[in-house]
Amino acid sequence: MKVCPISAFEIIDTLKVFCYNTPMNEIIKNRRSIRKFESGKPVTREQLDQLLEAAMLAPSACNSRPWEFIAVTKRETLDEIARVHPYAQMCKTASAAIIVVAIPQTDEKPAGYFPQDCGAATQNILLEAVALGLGTCWCGVYPRDERIADLRKLFNINEPKIPFCVIAIGTPAEEPNARGFFEKAKVTYVD
Amino acid sequence: MKVCPISAFEIIDTLKVFCYNTPMNEIIKNRRSIRKFESGKPVTREQLDQLLEAAMLAPSACNSRPWEFIAVTKRETLDEIARVHPYAQMCKTASAAIIVVAIPQTDEKPAGYFPQDCGAATQNILLEAVALGLGTCWCGVYPRDERIADLRKLFNINEPKIPFCVIAIGTPAEEPNARGFFEKAKVTYVD
Repeated sequence: MKVCPISAFEIIDTLKVFCYNTPMNEIIKNRRSIRKFESGKPVTREQLDQLLEAAMLAPSACNSRPWEFIAVTKRETLDEIARVHPYAQMCKTASAAIIVVAIPQTDEKPAGYFPQDCGAATQNILLEAVALGLGTCWCGVYPRDERIADLRKLFNINEPKIPFCVIAIGTPAEEPNARGFFEKAKVTYVD
Repeated sequence: MKVCPISAFEIIDTLKVFCYNTPMNEIIKNRRSIRKFESGKPVTREQLDQLLEAAMLAPSACNSRPWEFIAVTKRETLDEIARVHPYAQMCKTASAAIIVVAIPQTDEKPAGYFPQDCGAATQNILLEAVALGLGTCWCGVYPRDERIADLRKLFNINEPKIPFCVIAIGTPAEEPNARGFFEKAKVTYVD
């Protein structure tokens, strides 16, 4: 038996409130686009799979799951991504990258929803990364024809699949300010 | 001074691991599409603003923030949404709904990214709702012409703005099984 300055139960109650109410918003608030990563800090296969699980838990139109993923940790491939994608230069210092590959829905009901579905899956990866202490940068590919063509060539992605985005991943080596904020002028209340 | 069976510091350390590592994934895992809500459980303005803050903390192409929001708690307007949108019937029992309204980017650099940007913002709302103990259902509007036209009329949304989706919100009155899962066949590792 050890002596505590306060009751263990008080601590648990306090932390439960923190755990169940605060962290989501904290994670959403703490997400940043990270463009500089620490070198020599690998992203493990286990971490990649956790990020990919988060992605695949996103909702999608009619549960069509219109996505696939390429998880890259090979140094020269990361450098190749930076070479072909003008806004993915941070892949030079990233330890990993995930290419989200869209599979456009062919069924009539969910047809055309893949960009928003893949956007939700991508957002899940970014948030899960914060929870793992990792930083990310979402680099747009679709709908830019040239970037799509370059990524197709690099990863041998054939139609109907479409390279959707590149997510650079690593341990943050910078702490940029938040750019998102609540903007009341963007809200109309109907009550 | 009270006596604890274990050290308070051990508890804090254990819960810290839980707080910083587990909940994100738990929230992502616990998100469901909820189609039945408890009646008489209002969604407060404070909760709506927290959901909308989460939305506006999502990243967007060139930080263009191509979105606006209509936050509905008026009963008859919720019923109207259910009347015009064939897949938003759960709005009849929902206590609130958020209409995400896209503002397509006109600048060349971020042009065309609004569906994925609004998809990320929508996903943030769904996750924040789980953290608040609320359930949600993402009902697609864009790119369905008829639904876009009906929502335009109902909320007086004029071009270039586009009704993007309806998110029904309330206290869950059902516990559907998870539909998302990690699917290894969808991953290619380049290492």
